[in-house]
Amino acid sequence: MSFAATIVTLYPEMFPGHLGHSLAGKALANGAWSLQTVQLRQFGLGKHRAVDDTPAGGGAGMVLRPDCLAEAIDSAGVAAETPRLLMSPRGKPLTQALVRDLAAGPGALIVCGRFEGVDERVIEARGLTEISIGDYILSGGEPAALTLLDAVIRLLPGVMGNEESGAEESFETGLLEHPHYTKPAEWEDRAVPDILKSGNHAAIDTWRREQAERLTEERRPDLLARRADTSRQ
Amino acid sequence: MSFAATIVTLYPEMFPGHLGHSLAGKALANGAWSLQTVQLRQFGLGKHRAVDDTPAGGGAGMVLRPDCLAEAIDSAGVAAETPRLLMSPRGKPLTQALVRDLAAGPGALIVCGRFEGVDERVIEARGLTEISIGDYILSGGEPAALTLLDAVIRLLPGVMGNEESGAEESFETGLLEHPHYTKPAEWEDRAVPDILKSGNHAAIDTWRREQAERLTEERRPDLLARRADTSRQ
Repeated sequence: MSFAATIVTLYPEMFPGHLGHSLAGKALANGAWSLQTVQLRQFGLGKHRAVDDTPAGGGAGMVLRPDCLAEAIDSAGVAAETPRLLMSPRGKPLTQALVRDLAAGPGALIVCGRFEGVDERVIEARGLTEISIGDYILSGGEPAALTLLDAVIRLLPGVMGNEESGAEESFETGLLEHPHYTKPAEWEDRAVPDILKSGNHAAIDTWRREQAERLTEERRPDLLARRADTSRQ
Repeated sequence: MSFAATIVTLYPEMFPGHLGHSLAGKALANGAWSLQTVQLRQFGLGKHRAVDDTPAGGGAGMVLRPDCLAEAIDSAGVAAETPRLLMSPRGKPLTQALVRDLAAGPGALIVCGRFEGVDERVIEARGLTEISIGDYILSGGEPAALTLLDAVIRLLPGVMGNEESGAEESFETGLLEHPHYTKPAEWEDRAVPDILKSGNHAAIDTWRREQAERLTEERRPDLLARRADTSRQ
């Protein structure tokens, strides 16, 4: 059974986008995942097929109507157990743990919100989980959906082959990755650190660990704090 | 002067991807931003044009060589004042403040790393700032670069027109957005909250504020903590 991605969007032409190339593109071609898009506009009202209207209570921007969006979602006919997500800066932050959960499941229905917002009633009535890929504002949910799918697809069986990701192991430990070096041994008067040429694997592991801790402390003290919390539990 | 995006990548075919459509696509067509890709493979070594090699000190995965990547970067000929970014899960988290800074500048050179890593010496020697779009692992830097550019492009002069983003204002206050409602007034036995139909703007503002605080407390206590820190300064 392959991972089925269903996207509700006003811009189906944005899909598969970058997911049509490289690893994800090959995986799409060989059936490791599938893509269905639902054009929300099809469920719009009137001559202009409007799907949004002004906010109740006043204010700037437009809000996606619950009736149009619910019809679009229902038309997709995804199984009840399929996670239903709404990409939104208000959402729960995307984490690698959530990515792994999604990759282990049957697929996802992903609603691409617009920044103005989505009527709260359809979020409740259709059980949408709001997911944010980060604390910045995008033009809409589409780039977020493509990013989330990229993270999920690389974990599907057979997609990465034998490639291993040090970054992934690093995330599991709650630290950022240590610095990497490769050939040439000297480049622009900069040498690979001697320790890495020592052949002393225990010393190399210790050095990498220290470097990872130093980098995490410099750049992401929040990760260290979270890690301390977890180890105390 | 328009925003000049220069991408160093092994997958130039992934660009402009979703940025070729809708707002960003129109902005690209009318010159609000420009896109140049540099195929890193062009600077590879030997018959297979290899750009990576095994990690010094051992370990899984491959590391991008400093010499090939530096040549690719230098070939792009971007001005010294142009920010040089490396998309990487090890990086500084992307924030809306950083997006605004980039949008106000001349452009960006963006190196799309691979998850195995990039030789540390080229990061130092070419002054690359490592940026992460979130705590999850992608197939490479390309989806991250496209996401970052989407956030930047919508802020360029003339791109959004008169559209306003409540989400953006909300981010400025350090709170998640309040729930939105629009027509119809009743849908699937769910009504728009009475307060929003009251016409009492002060009461509506208070309600929205309370809802935003409640949501932020539920979903993002980290934002509330950060906010408290800031107001104490």
